[in-house]
Amino acid sequence: MPVSFDFTNVLSFITNSEFENISEFVKQAHNQLHQQTGPGSDYLGWIDWPINYDKEEFLQVKLAAERIQQQSDALIVIGIGGSYLGSKAAIEALSHTFHNQVKGNTEVYFAGHNISPTYITHLLQLLEGKDISINVISKSGTTTEPALAFRIFRTLLEKKYGKEEARNRIYVTTDRSKGALRNLAVEEGYETFVIPDNIGGRYSVLTPVGLLPMAVAGLNIDQVMQGAKAAYHKYNNPVLATNESYQYAAVRNIFYNKGKSIELFVSYEPGLLSTAEWWKQLFGESEGKDEKGLFPASVNFSTDLHSMGQYVQEGHRLFFETVLQVKKPSLDLVIQEDPANIDGLNFLAGKTMDEVNKKAALGTSLAHVDGGVPNLVIELDELNEFTFGEMIYFFEKACAISGTLLGVNPFDQPGVEAYKTNMFALLGKEGFEKEREKLENRLLPSGNSQNDEVKIQ
Amino acid sequence: MPVSFDFTNVLSFITNSEFENISEFVKQAHNQLHQQTGPGSDYLGWIDWPINYDKEEFLQVKLAAERIQQQSDALIVIGIGGSYLGSKAAIEALSHTFHNQVKGNTEVYFAGHNISPTYITHLLQLLEGKDISINVISKSGTTTEPALAFRIFRTLLEKKYGKEEARNRIYVTTDRSKGALRNLAVEEGYETFVIPDNIGGRYSVLTPVGLLPMAVAGLNIDQVMQGAKAAYHKYNNPVLATNESYQYAAVRNIFYNKGKSIELFVSYEPGLLSTAEWWKQLFGESEGKDEKGLFPASVNFSTDLHSMGQYVQEGHRLFFETVLQVKKPSLDLVIQEDPANIDGLNFLAGKTMDEVNKKAALGTSLAHVDGGVPNLVIELDELNEFTFGEMIYFFEKACAISGTLLGVNPFDQPGVEAYKTNMFALLGKEGFEKEREKLENRLLPSGNSQNDEVKIQ
Repeated sequence: MPVSFDFTNVLSFITNSEFENISEFVKQAHNQLHQQTGPGSDYLGWIDWPINYDKEEFLQVKLAAERIQQQSDALIVIGIGGSYLGSKAAIEALSHTFHNQVKGNTEVYFAGHNISPTYITHLLQLLEGKDISINVISKSGTTTEPALAFRIFRTLLEKKYGKEEARNRIYVTTDRSKGALRNLAVEEGYETFVIPDNIGGRYSVLTPVGLLPMAVAGLNIDQVMQGAKAAYHKYNNPVLATNESYQYAAVRNIFYNKGKSIELFVSYEPGLLSTAEWWKQLFGESEGKDEKGLFPASVNFSTDLHSMGQYVQEGHRLFFETVLQVKKPSLDLVIQEDPANIDGLNFLAGKTMDEVNKKAALGTSLAHVDGGVPNLVIELDELNEFTFGEMIYFFEKACAISGTLLGVNPFDQPGVEAYKTNMFALLGKEGFEKEREKLENRLLPSGNSQNDEVKIQ
Repeated sequence: MPVSFDFTNVLSFITNSEFENISEFVKQAHNQLHQQTGPGSDYLGWIDWPINYDKEEFLQVKLAAERIQQQSDALIVIGIGGSYLGSKAAIEALSHTFHNQVKGNTEVYFAGHNISPTYITHLLQLLEGKDISINVISKSGTTTEPALAFRIFRTLLEKKYGKEEARNRIYVTTDRSKGALRNLAVEEGYETFVIPDNIGGRYSVLTPVGLLPMAVAGLNIDQVMQGAKAAYHKYNNPVLATNESYQYAAVRNIFYNKGKSIELFVSYEPGLLSTAEWWKQLFGESEGKDEKGLFPASVNFSTDLHSMGQYVQEGHRLFFETVLQVKKPSLDLVIQEDPANIDGLNFLAGKTMDEVNKKAALGTSLAHVDGGVPNLVIELDELNEFTFGEMIYFFEKACAISGTLLGVNPFDQPGVEAYKTNMFALLGKEGFEKEREKLENRLLPSGNSQNDEVKIQ
């Protein structure tokens, strides 16, 4: 099985009756989801997406990717949150570790995912003398971070190539019909791709949002969709005993109700670091509301066994681990005999490095279970486009069920507005005058201000 | 003040009497630390290090760095845990964002911090045709990850340059007098640097462990040590009211005792991502023992406001935030007017990008406080070698006090051995036969094995 879930290492922490007791609730969550009767049912377009996606647009994505590869040395992907995390995860997991430094590759850089002038200045310096194209990804076109970056890169392109040629180098992924970015694209005649109305940002990696950057980086997006399709069929039934995606959701819910507060996402390949970041958004944004939800955190082993390992083994027992394991390594190396054997590692000679990595993983898992840390294992047969697509859908489906079991709307993100309102008010945006007044009073050096200089006596 | 600590945003969560009550305990912890009477007192060499470090060796580090810059296109730093996190943090914080891609720079790559055959194969491919030097960093020389990588790179160098010239390209940072790596270095005549006996890995960034890679990357390590020295004097007194490093330690302890489980390290510059990883090792490894300790996690804003932001604003209220803020940006950009104003961002025209970044930070802090998340702020005047050195020492001192207040030995890491023992046993290392037998029985498909294939009914 390309993607499989193994919870044997939680069986000393959870009883069989706990699984039995939750199974009817899982069925209920499944029915709410598939009958679109649960919270957030306007955002369920991702469920059937692996079979219902727009095949013509998919072809257009591949053609655009080829054009970008021909016309440019580098693609700048402008997006934030769900508009960049999925493609970044895929490219890092499936391409060369040093993709942007390998000759012949179309380089892919991300921008508009921060407001750091240092980052963007350095990126502009790096791009000097390179031919570039842009893929700007934003539902509205007014989100501050990507909109600021797009201003800068659009101006750069128009200066560098002239307005006409710049048009051929700007690719827009946005709302089907409305919004500032759609309007601009129509006006300027940019090539466009659609962010479906009924698919939220964190569920959008299998749409053009994620697919175009992946294809430009050289990934086989047909295989990504094939993997997702396989997962669609595999995780389409309500029975806990046979649906591994739901088993993962159920175990999460059981541990949360037992008092675990943190889920620690573990991988043993550096290429999976950004997959962990994508996973954090998926689960954190879906479940972190109403003062509930497992806190999603991540580590990369064996690297972090030498930093966070001590805590995981013996610290506060408030978490469980979800290990993303890859069965067959993409590459491997045989460890050589050293006649002097100064490091004492000759007992490893003839073994492959992946064998050592796997024994580290197994040894760690056993040690952590002994230390009171339950271990879930999600295993990919190998790390390729197919299993990546399958894994994405495995997590998406699990997240929807898990959030529903938790009693939240897994598809909204009301809390994301709070800082934006304050930021706009502090920056003097029109329409935020009242908020500005309130904040300014609060920030006054006198009175009961939070920022008052108070000294410890 | 180059580095300062502001806890005004926690004052609605902590009362003055809590500070008063803890102040005598802080004094006690300070005295234990400075009189070397507390737990782990064999590992206090870092306290006086900023004034007592070996000035001759420091000069040798600078000369070696110059030689490496002249002889090679790239330096491979081989180390794990405290042997790479500090220099990686410094280089990412203080160098060009795309350091390794900027012409004229001596590239710096890390290896031996994982067991991934994919990573090391890709790195070897990338280095084809480049002149390279190695800095291998290991107290013993037998830690699996760096020892394996050193085998590979030493062989590569000897093949590429011959044994004689390879010797001139291998720089060893290890124990002063004993261990496999020291013995090899003496035998082969490699240039060596000392990891002091009384300074643990996570406290070693200001020794040659961190300084040599930093210097090769072009950082001014004199300034790093100047900053550390300033911090040594600044945080050398036991009085909570005036010692900001101790204030940070005290606030952490108070929140832990109030039931907070997670400390979320926040920064607003992508260049500080690895500083967060360094910080996680420092605090996680120092405090995560005896089933205690705050779980250290990190986010990079505004980036992650679009992924983890929802959770931070409205999820389970089990954490507080420690924000590392940089006052004066390294670089800045003025936002330009766009006549069409399609994105509606003209209200920002004429402002700098850093102003927007700062208002995002302030708006976020206020929103999170409203959402029940206390905010500590550690502010660096600017991000340079001096403030980096000062910040390192600020955290080191705070961590020692914090761990002492928690009642643990902040300087050991007994839990790190558990997975190693299992790994060695599973790999058939001599001397681990009994453990191997135990594990093999446990892993048998029959019996009460944890890995038994159990199905949910």
